[in-house]
Parts: sequence; structure tokens; C-alpha cells
Amino acid sequence: MKIHLENFDILTSTRSSPIEGGSVLVRDDRIEKVIPESPGGDSISADRTIEGNGMLLLPGFVNAHSHLGMTIFRGYADDIELDRWLNEWIWPAEENLTPEEVYWGSLLAIVEAIHSGTTAIADMYFYMDQTARAIEETGIRGLISYGLIAEELDQKGSEELQTGLELADEWDGKANGRIRVALSPHAPYTCGDDVLKEVSKMAEGKDIPIHTHVSETKKEVEDSLEKFGISPVERLESLGVLENELLAAHCVHLNSKDMDILGEKDVVVAHNPSSNMKLSSGAAPIKELRNQGVEVLLGTDGPGSNNDLDAFGEMRQAAFLAKLNSNDPTALSAEDTLSLATAGAVDQLGLSNIGRIQEGNKADLIGLTRKGVHWTPEYNTVSNLVYSGKSSDVDMMMVDGNMVMEDGSIEGIDEEKVMKKVRQIGKKYGQIRKEL
Amino acid sequence: MKIHLENFDILTSTRSSPIEGGSVLVRDDRIEKVIPESPGGDSISADRTIEGNGMLLLPGFVNAHSHLGMTIFRGYADDIELDRWLNEWIWPAEENLTPEEVYWGSLLAIVEAIHSGTTAIADMYFYMDQTARAIEETGIRGLISYGLIAEELDQKGSEELQTGLELADEWDGKANGRIRVALSPHAPYTCGDDVLKEVSKMAEGKDIPIHTHVSETKKEVEDSLEKFGISPVERLESLGVLENELLAAHCVHLNSKDMDILGEKDVVVAHNPSSNMKLSSGAAPIKELRNQGVEVLLGTDGPGSNNDLDAFGEMRQAAFLAKLNSNDPTALSAEDTLSLATAGAVDQLGLSNIGRIQEGNKADLIGLTRKGVHWTPEYNTVSNLVYSGKSSDVDMMMVDGNMVMEDGSIEGIDEEKVMKKVRQIGKKYGQIRKEL
Repeated sequence: MKIHLENFDILTSTRSSPIEGGSVLVRDDRIEKVIPESPGGDSISADRTIEGNGMLLLPGFVNAHSHLGMTIFRGYADDIELDRWLNEWIWPAEENLTPEEVYWGSLLAIVEAIHSGTTAIADMYFYMDQTARAIEETGIRGLISYGLIAEELDQKGSEELQTGLELADEWDGKANGRIRVALSPHAPYTCGDDVLKEVSKMAEGKDIPIHTHVSETKKEVEDSLEKFGISPVERLESLGVLENELLAAHCVHLNSKDMDILGEKDVVVAHNPSSNMKLSSGAAPIKELRNQGVEVLLGTDGPGSNNDLDAFGEMRQAAFLAKLNSNDPTALSAEDTLSLATAGAVDQLGLSNIGRIQEGNKADLIGLTRKGVHWTPEYNTVSNLVYSGKSSDVDMMMVDGNMVMEDGSIEGIDEEKVMKKVRQIGKKYGQIRKEL
Repeated sequence: MKIHLENFDILTSTRSSPIEGGSVLVRDDRIEKVIPESPGGDSISADRTIEGNGMLLLPGFVNAHSHLGMTIFRGYADDIELDRWLNEWIWPAEENLTPEEVYWGSLLAIVEAIHSGTTAIADMYFYMDQTARAIEETGIRGLISYGLIAEELDQKGSEELQTGLELADEWDGKANGRIRVALSPHAPYTCGDDVLKEVSKMAEGKDIPIHTHVSETKKEVEDSLEKFGISPVERLESLGVLENELLAAHCVHLNSKDMDILGEKDVVVAHNPSSNMKLSSGAAPIKELRNQGVEVLLGTDGPGSNNDLDAFGEMRQAAFLAKLNSNDPTALSAEDTLSLATAGAVDQLGLSNIGRIQEGNKADLIGLTRKGVHWTPEYNTVSNLVYSGKSSDVDMMMVDGNMVMEDGSIEGIDEEKVMKKVRQIGKKYGQIRKEL
């Protein structure tokens, strides 16, 4: 299959101005050629030509940390302390979740993410085969994992690990490689040493990455220091976990040794600025991490705690929070922020060869209109994109060379039906919520 | 003129759930009646009936601090230290501004603000008669002022003051009272003692409010302590400025005495969380201010430094920043945030009788669709509105009893023309920018 994307303004990398009126030739799942001037007419033979009319073409956004199934709990419990939020609201509600509900919640979440230009999502939750189905059907790219919680490698611990491994066996590499699977010990504080060691060994054996929560709250770091005498990052290192490709979500509370370790071990940090602010967790030291050479991606976290899946909101938040936190308005420029949001510099975690529009890379692309007043005037395209762009600008999406969205409409998905299903599920939890 | 808004879900105040399928009867500029169940048929006689089809109806948003004309400089200079931003980029560019350009910049800004549900804007800049024209034409409400800068009451100082007074004489109370005028000494650090005293006297004489910048940066507070031995807030108090109705923008760096004074003197604070973050100014102590009984409103600041005029983005930011800054996830709940955004508790500054849908109040109302996936599910309407609502949800606007927007389209404004004009102006400044 050969698709000719004609007459787009192409942002090939985050450092550039767009190439005006260019073409991109896509063959199967790859970018075959970037042509600075659209040749016009029939001079390019392709199975299909898509006319951009000057739309902005850029790499799709990567959401590096989410819990899609939790979309069922959007707005379920806000403005509450983290402990109470989990213990009194979220965990009791989650006990009622069915696989079918996780499917519909994931599907709705992916629809929302697509509308904001997200082409790949790293997701950790449970009933993940249901999330895998939703990813497969919608056409996006996913790094999925079962969030396993186990203190010991006893029967329950082994079963938890088994659930994670079965997901990998069943789904890793499926959908032309769009679906990759990681192992996810939920967090250092919810998994014992033996469990973390075993997960690490399994991940190495299967050559798959690990995705976990690290040092999200001050309390968990203090608890780790008290219980183990070392920080969560040091503990993960001592147990061999950092020898694998690691996606470490949050990393809010780090000391300088932690940052050294993350840099040395090529850990990728998933930064979730909105969630960290809303839950009062703190501000991750993104400027310092990047100075240490640590690659950072952006995540929304689950819609139970954010409460949306908007890549634009997260970009703005990441840039603004870095500037506030480092007391430096030059920190995390628009260009740097866009690079984080598109995984422009990351070449692991199943995210190789995306993030730049260049020959040979995966064709994971989005098209944006710049017709809204918020795009006017336009001195610096990247600046407008990051600081005043909106999800409503996203008009087109291609993932792995396939059209996922055209004219703002997602292929093969009946959005009304998805919303209706999730509203029905919401009624069930609305009732549970009333009875609390 | 009598308008019947029929079959809306009505959020009468920020503490409530919406009244489902209710009616609001508007006579001239006021809400005449709120009817919990739409009577249907022709049982209500009105000049016009507007069918809501279950849209959410709520008070419009108030943008309490902006510089609309600066929309010309959106994205002109980002990721730069404040000093360099002003001295090397913005001030040299502003020297080239013409009244006509401020008109088109203001008009584009107001169009953008209307699309995000903003019914009233407090604006301080220059060539403000042009901004007044744009407010009059679009139909929104405005508290406008000329930002005067003067060290002494010499000839230049007197001329500056005169410019501010002329604006008041010409425009205060115009457009059925939709336009109010304030006096604006730009900031304590750009105006001398005699100037501030004189402005204060003039404002009292004319019974109009004062709008100024207060303690935005750490440096200006340190400079004030060094030069005057007191903080900017103490200085404004000592010069009598706080005897007037005062809108104090920013208030980021306050000590506890400052907060006491602001509370005692009924000062209204315009909180600009996005701008304060982007420029690394800091986080205003909103939780503490509110505990002192200080009324707080939300502002976007000028699009030169934010870079948009999105009420939804500012609500989210205000709530998230308060939670982060106070280390308390219960700080600034969704309900409180919505109250700040709609001026629900403010009864001065020309903002009396708005902010709540109740009989006798001004008919400044917006209608939102909840059709997007980001509104699903809906356990708590206010929570969804603040944490996952988007400007693209805003479908309808009425200000002062007149329809400003219907079906997402602004009455009597050719948006394409406005954008074309501002793009042309942008070309001029793009050239100036290149020559820097």
C-alpha cells in the first residue's frame, strides 16, 4: 500500500520550521520519502493521495503513562487526599470492574487520545487483554502491561507474575508490531525484593521492557529509606531491574544519586505533570534530569487523576511546570517540549523509529488545521503548537501507515455507541458512589 | 425583549448539580425567572425561544486580567527571561503599534475569549479606545483601562493620567453599561508616589475602580523593600490607593502582613497562574489569600506571555497550581475554581450581579455541549467542567441579555476577516522580528 500525503506543511523535527507545501510518501508502515515540494498532478503514483491543503503534518504524540481503563472513574472522586482517594474511593470501586467495562473504558480513552493527536500509549492496568483489543481495533500503537502487586513470590505472587507473562505471550508483537508488552511490577513499594528480581529476570529472558511507578510521592521515598536504607531508585538498581529497558513513571522525588543512576542506566522517565500537580505529589526535576542526559517522555496518567488524555494540555503543563519549578523561563522550551511529547529522542520501549518525519521511520503522523483564532498570528509554528494549540486542531491521523482518523472522524469507531456504553457503566458506579 | 431559554441543564451556582431540563426567562439585560422544569409548548410568551436540547447553562467566565492588544505578539518571543523579553523583544515591537493594529488584535482576542466562554474581560493596555470599540461590537462586558507609567507628576506624568481620564470620560458606562473604565497605574514600580496618590484621588472622585499589577516578581518586591522600606502592598496602602475598589493582578510574592491588608481593604486579586508559571514568576498563595477572605478571580494575562485566552486552561491551571503549591490536593476544589472563574462571589469592579443564575442578575450566560468523549462518564458536572472541559464545548453565549454566539458562531463577526487582518499585521512584526 502506497499513500501520498500531498500539500502539507511538514514539521520534520522539533527544531525546524515546517517545510511548506511538501509531500510525504508512505509505503506500508514506513515513510518512504519526504519531498520538499509537492509535485502535483499524477507525477507520483500511489494507491491513494490525501490532500493536506496546507495542514500541519508532524509526528504523533506519545502518551508514556496511563491507566486507560480508569476512564470509567473520570471525575469519580476529585479534590481528595491520595490515601483517601485510593482507599475509600478508587480501590473499592475497582473491585467491581469487569473485563467488559475495562474494554469500553479503554476504547473511550483511546478515542479521546486520538482526538488529541496521540498515536502511541504506554498503559498499565488490569484486564489488559481488553485494552489490547481496544488498541488493536482503533489502530494506534501501545506498550501494555499488567500492573502486578506482590510482596512475596508465594502462590499469589507467582499468579500475579503469570498474568503479566501471559499477556506478553499472547499480545507482544501483535497487530503488525503495534502492540508491545512490558512487565509491570506496580511500584517498588508494592512489590517485594524477590518479586522485583524475578520480574527483572523474566523481562530479560523475554527481551521486553519494564514499566513501573517510581518515587511518585515523598512518603514512598521516606518509607523506602526507613525500610531498606536506600531510595526506590537505588533499590531498583540493587535488584538488577535497571539492567532492562525501563520506563519509570513520575520520578518526582529524586536525589542527585538517583538522577546519576537513571542517566547511567538509560532509564526513560514518564513525566506526568498534571497528575503530579492535581494530587499534590510535587514537581519532577525535569530540567536536572535532562541535564543528566535522562530521556523524558510525557504522560497523562489515568483519567481518574488528571482527568483527561489531552496531549496539548500535558505539553503546556510540562513546559510551564519546568519553568516554575526551576525558576527559569528558558527551561523546557517549546521545541524541547514537543520533542518530549513525540518521543523524538527515544529509541527503545518499542518506540524506535518514530518521533521524526524522515525516510525509513514509522508512518505515525498527525495532521493539524491552523484555522482557529488561537493560531493567529504565527511567528513560530512550534511555539503556537505547544503554547496555544488545542486538541480540536487535530484533523487527521495515520499510524503504522494506516489511516486512523480523517476529517476529525475515527475510522470504524461508532463514538456515540462507545459513549453510550460508558454512560451505562457510569450509572453502575454512580450508584456505588452514592452508597459510599 | 424577552427570551426563553428552554430545556437547558442549569448550573445555578458552583455548589449545585444542574437543574435538568429547566428554563431561564430573560427580559432585557436581566434574568427574570429560573424555572426548574421547562413548561414546553407555548405556555411561556417570549419574543424568542432558544431550545437547549439539554445543553449545560452556566454563568459566563470572567477574565480578570489581560492585555488584549498584545495578541499581536502571541508567540513573538517565548522561552526568554522576563527582562530580555520586555527590553529586547516586546517594548521595541510595541513602539511600532498603531491604534488600528490594537483594534484588530483586541477583536481577535475577544473572538478567542468568546469561543472559550468568556463574557467579561478586565483589560489594561494602550490605544484602549480601540479595545473599547472591539468590546462594543462583539457584545461582551469589559472593564478597560489605560496602563499609565509615570515617575513624577510632571508634564509627561500629567499627560499619562489625562489619557486614562479621557478614556473614562468617553467610555465609562457605554454600551448599556457593558463597558466600565478603571484607572490603571501600571504598577507600583513604574509609578511614583505622587502619581499613585493623584490616581487614587481621581478614581475616588469619579467613583471608578483601579486596576494595577502588584508583586508579580520577587525582584520588584525586593526593590520596593530596598527603595521604600515597605512592600508594594504596604506602599499602595500608605498612599491611599486601597481606599478605592482595587483589582490587583498577580500578587505572587506576598508576606502575611500584605495578605492581611488585602483582606481588610477588600482588594480583589486577579490570579494568572499560566502566565506566572511560564514567566517563572512563582505561584500566588491562593489558598492563604482565600483563607484571609480575599476574593480571587482568574486571568489569562496577555497572549504575549500565556499564550492564549482559554478560560478552561486557566481553571485547570489554577486548581492544579493551588494543589501543588499548598501541598494539599483538597485546595481549590472544582467548585471553588468555578466560582473564581465566574466571579460568583465578587460584587464590585462593575461585576455586580453576575456569576450566578438567579432572578434579577445580569443575563451573562453560556451554553455548553457535553457531547465530547472527555465529558463521559459524568459523576459530577462541575468536576468534569473544570478538570476535563474544553473551549470547544462552548456553543452559545448571551451577554447583557443579547445573543453573542449561537451554534458556535459569533454574531456579526467575520472571523476569517479578523484572522486575515491579524495575519497581515503579523507579517509586519515578523519582519521587525527578523531584523532584531
